[in-house]
Amino acid sequence: MKIGIIGGTGDIGEGLAHRLSQNHEIYIGSRDKDKACETSECMIKALSEKGISAHCQGVTNQDAVDMGDIVVISVNYRHLESTIKSLTGFEDKIVVTPVNPIGKTDHFYYDPPEEGSAALAIKKMLPESAKIVGAFNNISAQKWKKLDEVLDYSVAVCGDDLASKKIVMGLVEEVSELTAYDAGPLESSSIIESITPLILNIAKYNNMKDVGIKFY
Amino acid sequence: MKIGIIGGTGDIGEGLAHRLSQNHEIYIGSRDKDKACETSECMIKALSEKGISAHCQGVTNQDAVDMGDIVVISVNYRHLESTIKSLTGFEDKIVVTPVNPIGKTDHFYYDPPEEGSAALAIKKMLPESAKIVGAFNNISAQKWKKLDEVLDYSVAVCGDDLASKKIVMGLVEEVSELTAYDAGPLESSSIIESITPLILNIAKYNNMKDVGIKFY
Repeated sequence: MKIGIIGGTGDIGEGLAHRLSQNHEIYIGSRDKDKACETSECMIKALSEKGISAHCQGVTNQDAVDMGDIVVISVNYRHLESTIKSLTGFEDKIVVTPVNPIGKTDHFYYDPPEEGSAALAIKKMLPESAKIVGAFNNISAQKWKKLDEVLDYSVAVCGDDLASKKIVMGLVEEVSELTAYDAGPLESSSIIESITPLILNIAKYNNMKDVGIKFY
Repeated sequence: MKIGIIGGTGDIGEGLAHRLSQNHEIYIGSRDKDKACETSECMIKALSEKGISAHCQGVTNQDAVDMGDIVVISVNYRHLESTIKSLTGFEDKIVVTPVNPIGKTDHFYYDPPEEGSAALAIKKMLPESAKIVGAFNNISAQKWKKLDEVLDYSVAVCGDDLASKKIVMGLVEEVSELTAYDAGPLESSSIIESITPLILNIAKYNNMKDVGIKFY
């Protein structure tokens, strides 16, 4: 599949690209195309040293949308609206969001927009034919970056279009040892996104690092 | 410790009582004292057959509040307000809430009151000196009932009074193989409670039973 990653030079984008570029064509998008190319070249080199041929290219964020059958929005929540509104061409795309709106005082808390979640806000901003799927929300950026480390967490996947959800669940299961769980409609995204500030609090208050989650 | 369980004849109440009555004095409360006594006697007998001496007594819900140093509110959310408002004497008590406000259409969803969570609603209803602690929210009733089965889940514990929270975390860790995690202030209760409809959805959409959660 062709996977365009908006904000692909960030931890999640890079981590996903690294783990999927053997079997899929990855378009690492960025506002800064040079940075995207640099990230892509580094990745190809690092994987080549392990005997893995990576199908990867650095592009603009718009190219990542245009070229991807699946588009991953790998940006920080505070840049979400401005990023999405600068792009077009989402019609009929599967759009994957790992975005979590988080606030912080002396602890972390869930701080969603009025739509109820980042995923529901994205749905509102995009054409009706775009199929929004929430996934990869609760895996720490630090874990994504550790490219040789096994990721054996559970990933709750939610969305209103079943076929798109199943495709994304398949993609999740290609990444390391992640296990995908259908978590129901896109409305579930508020709960799934809110788990991220919860596990950040658990890390903080229990002296843990990079806390993840498993359902079983 | 003396633990009063309001609604102690329900699955969670009975399951907790069964697993804690060896080391603590358990007061199984009910609106129906006869039912509480019957549950208590059954439990004493069942544990005695395993060579365990249970410290357990059936009482009214009001007695459970009066006698407990720790009071567990083991009632369904729809009965929460009427139950709490029928009781007095919560001053200075540690009050543990596993209550989750859940709605259901073709899927489960989180349906909190205006206060933001069941725990925050309880805090509002009780005297200021009562110390509310959220715990045991995400363990399925069916698992509680299987009295010989090991429970090896993670339990997120939240509350504003650190000492009370630590006491409850200690109690959690006495139950089977549960692991307690400090999840921060009582405000975290909305996220923790919402995990329950999420895991109910995961069970529904993935043909699983009694889904639980682990943080690691």
